[in-house]
Amino acid sequence: MQITSRDNEKIKDIRRLLSRKHRDRTRLFLVEGICHVGEASAAGAVECLCYAPDLLTSEFAWRLIAGEQARGTPCYPLAAPAFAVLVQRERPTGLLAVARQLRARLEDLHPGNFPWGVALVSPQDPGNVGTVLRTVAAVGASGLLLLDHSADPYHPSSVRASMGALFSRPVARASFADFVRWARAGGYHIWGTSARANQDYRAIPCYPRPLVLLLGNEQKGLTSQQAAACDEMVRLPMHGPITSLNLAVAAGVMLYEMLAKGDE
Amino acid sequence: MQITSRDNEKIKDIRRLLSRKHRDRTRLFLVEGICHVGEASAAGAVECLCYAPDLLTSEFAWRLIAGEQARGTPCYPLAAPAFAVLVQRERPTGLLAVARQLRARLEDLHPGNFPWGVALVSPQDPGNVGTVLRTVAAVGASGLLLLDHSADPYHPSSVRASMGALFSRPVARASFADFVRWARAGGYHIWGTSARANQDYRAIPCYPRPLVLLLGNEQKGLTSQQAAACDEMVRLPMHGPITSLNLAVAAGVMLYEMLAKGDE
Repeated sequence: MQITSRDNEKIKDIRRLLSRKHRDRTRLFLVEGICHVGEASAAGAVECLCYAPDLLTSEFAWRLIAGEQARGTPCYPLAAPAFAVLVQRERPTGLLAVARQLRARLEDLHPGNFPWGVALVSPQDPGNVGTVLRTVAAVGASGLLLLDHSADPYHPSSVRASMGALFSRPVARASFADFVRWARAGGYHIWGTSARANQDYRAIPCYPRPLVLLLGNEQKGLTSQQAAACDEMVRLPMHGPITSLNLAVAAGVMLYEMLAKGDE
Repeated sequence: MQITSRDNEKIKDIRRLLSRKHRDRTRLFLVEGICHVGEASAAGAVECLCYAPDLLTSEFAWRLIAGEQARGTPCYPLAAPAFAVLVQRERPTGLLAVARQLRARLEDLHPGNFPWGVALVSPQDPGNVGTVLRTVAAVGASGLLLLDHSADPYHPSSVRASMGALFSRPVARASFADFVRWARAGGYHIWGTSARANQDYRAIPCYPRPLVLLLGNEQKGLTSQQAAACDEMVRLPMHGPITSLNLAVAAGVMLYEMLAKGDE
């Protein structure tokens, strides 16, 4: 039986996941799009599925639904208008998952399972968080640490930008102080970036692992206290009136340099 | 005399610039924030200024207003609630410019004034367009070409992401066919990127200028026809389930490589 009313309790319940408070409390989040729902399913992270039979033409999607049904996952067919209130995309493909947040804990990460990764201090834009995570996965780095008060990696903008990397890479939250203690204990080399650093990132001959690339907040960069916690600071060359890069672009340039000059 | 009503004709007229159609017709756009208004002013691009005396505490901003008034630029003081309907920021600083679009024409660009730049085919996300332009300025590249049906570089998201680079770097629009003719005539080397290219971007010993970095659409990348127009295709290494990078991240990694391996 299709759910046709937007006021259906199940629909209203799922819609609440658009708020961070509700995501934090339930440890669930929304995943749109057939590919990404497929990744959530492969990771065993699907709590329930919603689909719109009127919109869904992909055979892969129908197989996905059958697979989840066989596992005992609740799967709800929705009329297209009821489905539309749950999704952000302009042209929804007709498949949405409520997925479990696979939160990693800092204390479970160590050089053996997390040889190199990124730590962001208080990033504000969820799109940046997801884009950095996508790049982390693209270069084969280990995962992402979010320090202090960070944008939610399970915000729809972050989920969309991460292109499924949320299911393949650990994301852990921690305070800056706990992060520094953890990095020291694990023998990590912390690399920070600053427009005023003496060393050009390109002049570093090797980025040996274990390492963490530490990037500051979009507006303020690393504070001097945060920079003091780094083992080394490097600079990305900058011309003209521009004094900084977009956070995700800076992370991408550094990660590709660290990939090319890793010690593996 | 302060404008206090949101229904004031001037306010309504300026608010229309939130629509692309109106921006295209008038060749004007909105610039928020004291720094960026300062850059618009330095570029002589300010058509008129709006400011909220109740919000504005920066001395630099007051000097900016005085400078534009001395030039004969219309400057409108607004009550804070009237100002609020014009701005997108959560904490407006109290200064907004209506600026003229400094559109460049492809036929005015040549290896002498545009030795290296980026061309994007049909980018859809205005945030990506602005972020690429910010990176173009950061590496000291020449400017940005937007091919075929592109997101508007004067969309508020692009203006915000470009961090003022809209006033320091030329942005030109063209059809893909005109771009290829222009590049051939100027002796440009066109570099494209694809996950399936044979050459690793890092293995290229030198990126001699004049050159254009050509990047495809966010969803589809370069079509085989567009790739065929490139002199060379390179690949950014990619691991695991991720098959592509965010457009602005890909542009950033390539531009920093081209900066390090330019022939200047």
